[in-house]
Amino acid sequence: MEMAKIGPGVAGGNNRQTLTDDDKLGRDLFDHWCRQAGLTVSVDRMGTMFARRAGADETLPPVMMGSHLDTQPTGGKFDGVLGVLAGLEVVRSLNEMGIRTRHPIEVVNWTNEEGARFAPAILASAVFAGKMSLEDAYALTDDEGKTFGGELSRIGYKGENPVGDRPIKAMFELHIEQGPILEAEGLELGVVSHAQGLRWIEFTLTGYECHTGTTPMPVRRNALVGAARAVELVNKVALDFEPDAVATVGYLNVSPNSRNIVPGSVTFCVDMRNPSLEDLKDMETAIVTGVEQIADDLKLDCTSQEVGAYDPVVFDEDCVSAVRNAAEQLGYSHKDMVSGAGHDACHIAAVAPTAMIFCPCVGGISHNEAEEITPEWAAAGADVLLHAVVATAGVVEE
Amino acid sequence: MEMAKIGPGVAGGNNRQTLTDDDKLGRDLFDHWCRQAGLTVSVDRMGTMFARRAGADETLPPVMMGSHLDTQPTGGKFDGVLGVLAGLEVVRSLNEMGIRTRHPIEVVNWTNEEGARFAPAILASAVFAGKMSLEDAYALTDDEGKTFGGELSRIGYKGENPVGDRPIKAMFELHIEQGPILEAEGLELGVVSHAQGLRWIEFTLTGYECHTGTTPMPVRRNALVGAARAVELVNKVALDFEPDAVATVGYLNVSPNSRNIVPGSVTFCVDMRNPSLEDLKDMETAIVTGVEQIADDLKLDCTSQEVGAYDPVVFDEDCVSAVRNAAEQLGYSHKDMVSGAGHDACHIAAVAPTAMIFCPCVGGISHNEAEEITPEWAAAGADVLLHAVVATAGVVEE
Repeated sequence: MEMAKIGPGVAGGNNRQTLTDDDKLGRDLFDHWCRQAGLTVSVDRMGTMFARRAGADETLPPVMMGSHLDTQPTGGKFDGVLGVLAGLEVVRSLNEMGIRTRHPIEVVNWTNEEGARFAPAILASAVFAGKMSLEDAYALTDDEGKTFGGELSRIGYKGENPVGDRPIKAMFELHIEQGPILEAEGLELGVVSHAQGLRWIEFTLTGYECHTGTTPMPVRRNALVGAARAVELVNKVALDFEPDAVATVGYLNVSPNSRNIVPGSVTFCVDMRNPSLEDLKDMETAIVTGVEQIADDLKLDCTSQEVGAYDPVVFDEDCVSAVRNAAEQLGYSHKDMVSGAGHDACHIAAVAPTAMIFCPCVGGISHNEAEEITPEWAAAGADVLLHAVVATAGVVEE
Repeated sequence: MEMAKIGPGVAGGNNRQTLTDDDKLGRDLFDHWCRQAGLTVSVDRMGTMFARRAGADETLPPVMMGSHLDTQPTGGKFDGVLGVLAGLEVVRSLNEMGIRTRHPIEVVNWTNEEGARFAPAILASAVFAGKMSLEDAYALTDDEGKTFGGELSRIGYKGENPVGDRPIKAMFELHIEQGPILEAEGLELGVVSHAQGLRWIEFTLTGYECHTGTTPMPVRRNALVGAARAVELVNKVALDFEPDAVATVGYLNVSPNSRNIVPGSVTFCVDMRNPSLEDLKDMETAIVTGVEQIADDLKLDCTSQEVGAYDPVVFDEDCVSAVRNAAEQLGYSHKDMVSGAGHDACHIAAVAPTAMIFCPCVGGISHNEAEEITPEWAAAGADVLLHAVVATAGVVEE
């Protein structure tokens, strides 16, 4: 609730988008709390913050607990934030109980998970996992043309540590489910064994801008009519691949967006997800060829570009077991789940043993200021996180 | 070409939107030229500029030549500008020839014809004609929340003269056709006898914003899918009412417009036009009931608001004859036409005898930076404007 005071939204949630002044204030508060808990905070060149609790053997690789503090423009208070602050709470509990682990432990705040301001989402963990270059990430621009690199420097979080390329014992990410399943089934947490794959394809349809009053219908090349058909197509393709698939146009900009000009061009991004790589590829083919056909029918030019992608993920068997065992031992009701959303854990899974814990959320509502969880759910998730981390990091008897 | 240097576009045209710094510079240049030509410039409370050449009998009402200097965000150099500067050229020619008219003559620059920044379009002439109150006009806001009244003061063009409510002998507006007909038929000008009616209806569809990865397709209430169906419907209704009808969605904003959020609400404006009032009303009914049905099908809330409207116009018979006679006498090829676009003349026609002259434009292209006319077409239009104005204002033999 303290963190949520920074970057308040307009409807009770948060607007603390990445690399804004409010993101900086949120980071500063997290840094302050970490130092109070005796942690050593370092920042890498992507702005990702690593708050380290020393292990008995500092030559061993760390066990990480990571998620993100940035939010959507109309985001909730828990998406990402829960996983970072639960990590801090785990450290505080270990401190209180005087528990010393063999491996060091790090609480991580990954930069730009949301991607609302700078696409693609899940950015810093992608660079950490070697899936994107630092230079390409720095060159990304927001809608105002500001660069990621420039904004990272501006808020004072362009650190000096290299990004990635170092041994990690394991990473655990506690995150709200962002879907309706756990609450509907009355379960206290989810053991996440897999994650859906994702493709983001950004299309630009270009026709010819002209006067809405004087241009006869038959000679028009209206880019928005094309985009409208594409939105409908994307919806239909997702329904064709149900129940496991989703596809959405969430972002669409009309140019010149004037009431009396036939739109000359429209840019929109298609978000498609599927737990099967084969089905994901089939959806992509159906959508790309479908949009090209629509453009052809309306005499529009069509360009497309992949602006985000990750393949379906199978999380590490030992890490998943550590989560499941903790839930069993502590007596929390749970089930194995597939993550519908992308998470930092999905990228880190490529370079380190990784697993996730899902916390239920009210009505499955997320990416919405009305996002809500109960203190009991948060406590159950943090409790399981602590036990999975301690089991993985090992305890040194004093 | 001198005026076009102010507020250059990105592709050879102009971006000199109403009440911007560049609009002020354009007004200042026009004011300077008017004073050089011996005119007396006054400004009314809507910022409309009246540059007056005294008549032999100053108790008689003026003959006006008016259009607008503001442009679309990606506008051309001639839309509006031609009619204002041709009026100035008429005055210069009368000065050179030492012609004194019985009625005074006024060259008018009507504020905010385009409506791209502050909807509705054709604003100042609507207030002048008593179709909107000054207070309502002042309260209009742009996308940044700035008010029309505030911006008018800011650029120093909130004049002191009352708006409208004074006798006018006649008004003539020379304007580019903004359509393909005159050029295609090889004609030098159009005698505009009628104008299409227009309705602008702004809709907001509201569903529920949620995460694109975790929200199953069947439980979504996606506002953009509704808007997409509405765009397609608007296109279809226009085709149903062809050949005289047009309808377009040119303006559409998605909220929150993030790649991984199912759109919670979409606002869009439908522009529909028809020369028959009955057909215009039928189109409006088809579109409003159709959009409401779409919203119903998708469980979206739907609100709508009329943000612009004028009925079809029949221009004054004497004024139209004055234009036609001038074209005949001067030997310019011409035909009678219906205006597809709205113009200041459409509002002024309600309070004064009014007519329009159309100048061809290359490829019918307008509301596009590529808008183009030839010097010969411009000269023919200005020549006819001069003769129609002189015939209406009367000449005093010295």
